[in-house]
Amino acid sequence: MNENGSHSNGALKYVVPPLETVEWRNGGLEILDQTWLPLWREVRRITSVEAAVDALQRLVVRGAPAIGVFAGFAMVVGFDEAAPRSPAEAEDVLMRLEDEIGNARRTAISLRWAVSRVAAAARRGNDVAGMRAAALAEASAIQAQDRASCRRIAKHGLVELAGVSRILTHCNAGRLASTGIGTALAPIYAKFEAGQTVEVVSCETRPLFQGGRLTAWELGEAGVPVTLIIDGAAGAAISTGIIEAVIVGCDRVAMNGDTVNKIGTCGLAVCAYDEGIPFYVAGPLSSFDPDSPDGEEMPIEHRDDDEVLRIGVSQVNADVSVWNPAFDMTTAKYITAFITDAGVLRPPFRDSIAAALAAGGDAAP
Amino acid sequence: MNENGSHSNGALKYVVPPLETVEWRNGGLEILDQTWLPLWREVRRITSVEAAVDALQRLVVRGAPAIGVFAGFAMVVGFDEAAPRSPAEAEDVLMRLEDEIGNARRTAISLRWAVSRVAAAARRGNDVAGMRAAALAEASAIQAQDRASCRRIAKHGLVELAGVSRILTHCNAGRLASTGIGTALAPIYAKFEAGQTVEVVSCETRPLFQGGRLTAWELGEAGVPVTLIIDGAAGAAISTGIIEAVIVGCDRVAMNGDTVNKIGTCGLAVCAYDEGIPFYVAGPLSSFDPDSPDGEEMPIEHRDDDEVLRIGVSQVNADVSVWNPAFDMTTAKYITAFITDAGVLRPPFRDSIAAALAAGGDAAP
Repeated sequence: MNENGSHSNGALKYVVPPLETVEWRNGGLEILDQTWLPLWREVRRITSVEAAVDALQRLVVRGAPAIGVFAGFAMVVGFDEAAPRSPAEAEDVLMRLEDEIGNARRTAISLRWAVSRVAAAARRGNDVAGMRAAALAEASAIQAQDRASCRRIAKHGLVELAGVSRILTHCNAGRLASTGIGTALAPIYAKFEAGQTVEVVSCETRPLFQGGRLTAWELGEAGVPVTLIIDGAAGAAISTGIIEAVIVGCDRVAMNGDTVNKIGTCGLAVCAYDEGIPFYVAGPLSSFDPDSPDGEEMPIEHRDDDEVLRIGVSQVNADVSVWNPAFDMTTAKYITAFITDAGVLRPPFRDSIAAALAAGGDAAP
Repeated sequence: MNENGSHSNGALKYVVPPLETVEWRNGGLEILDQTWLPLWREVRRITSVEAAVDALQRLVVRGAPAIGVFAGFAMVVGFDEAAPRSPAEAEDVLMRLEDEIGNARRTAISLRWAVSRVAAAARRGNDVAGMRAAALAEASAIQAQDRASCRRIAKHGLVELAGVSRILTHCNAGRLASTGIGTALAPIYAKFEAGQTVEVVSCETRPLFQGGRLTAWELGEAGVPVTLIIDGAAGAAISTGIIEAVIVGCDRVAMNGDTVNKIGTCGLAVCAYDEGIPFYVAGPLSSFDPDSPDGEEMPIEHRDDDEVLRIGVSQVNADVSVWNPAFDMTTAKYITAFITDAGVLRPPFRDSIAAALAAGGDAAP
């Protein structure tokens, strides 16, 4: 038996536990610092809004679901830091926090969704203590929902990916990107737990190497076989037929299925489409943006040139121009299906997404 | 006037000079060490076969045309090192050198082509001194041919790329990959010299960053505008319509047009094809392999895992599996045209390549 798993019933061979990605512990917010994983593994306590915004912007915490959970708890940290003395003061604090935390990064819809949920919950409190308690309860509910969503994605993905064993993924949409067992990696962990053959090919994901540092590490830690490739090798891996399916997470999905995810995703989708292998996007229904009819207007964060220019101890000429978007948009035509907490959504996506949102994903088993 | 160029006749605005990539100077072989460019710029003298093989394998010298020129001169270095005392001894030396130098890397056809040419020339010498002189003359002829080929590619590419200004390239197929003005970059330098608007988007090209370190540097040095992107951003750059054409070099081309080039090339070709923008392969006719009817059997070098695992001071888990091919194969269907020293070859490639080889590229003006 795998040393990281525990024996379960007949259906499950191993149980992959979540990591301590984002936790509310001893009255405060703690996160696993992802900037130097796996070289240095350090839990950091976040005690101010400034530290929370910094953690979001420097990707100390990252991945759309984890960003949502973190932002929810960060609202409580900000509330405690401001220490409002009346409901009116508290309302001012909530509005400021919604703005400061909610705008720390612009692409993942989970960020604004979480701060809005927590602020709305707080506003239902009768006094300052009640508002604070309601905010913390809502942030905890978001975390519980995230963990449950990951398990539901795993369940639906297990069915969808039956018969597929060598799967390519990009960036990290696993346990480090959520507070559960991930989104794109959830069906992979589910296959592993069920004792099915599963192998992951992980793109290293420049510039910050979330695939090389995070995905390769967390899969290896769980015992799932993983092969690391440079991002440029993905096209060859797909075209030579060694990949049976591609699965990625998502930061924001439009109502027609256009998907914004880590830069590098759309090229993988084109190659998979061209080769005729399925390309799956996994994520909770909370990733779908009712205000975006298609992908054209969805915001793409651009990050510092320095991420590209600095290569370890070496460095590219500092005066070269850099184009460094953190995300790209994959046109819905290249996507086989969405694997969500409310089931698998298939084309035509405009219908299936609308129906899933109307039905309400969280209510699904 | 650009400080790196010199004023010329009316047709040429600037003249981009070659770099000292591979030179026979003061009776010996000197190369510009490309392993740490642009951070450290150092000319190295190669005085043994062991050093020559090491320089090839560690990519101190790289790029198919430069590899060919280097290998030709390295035959003379090996000849001098062995100091044969009779034509019979010299023949043994030549056979050993053809094997040792010719097999230092396996993908670029220019390597074996150059060592065979130099060995054959040496065998036409009457005595040891004559053999050595013939070898050096042939190696020098290969270099002169390379420089002329680059200029012919520039001329043909200038016509082909008229009206195109924002061009994406991968890896380095420029002055550092040849002893002239490059292959893929030759038409770009030609456009620049002609005063046309030209902008290059350069993929950084993991794992060894030849795009970030070499292409960005040599274009910047010449004054050509260049924007650096991570390899994963190429799909987004193409799909968002900011790229008008893709142009790459080649290490080996099959008779049907299937092309082996730096890993990452085939994914770019698929994305360009899908977007409907032209995808050009530039190279001398000596890159075409008459023994390869198609790309299926063309050898792909796989390199050390360490190139992928070691990321500056950080490092990925050392026990993760790695798939690290140095090249990939682009199916001919995705290629718009080959820009060669013998002109532009268009589909059906089986006919156009055969005709060009039969006509003999070097004879063309």
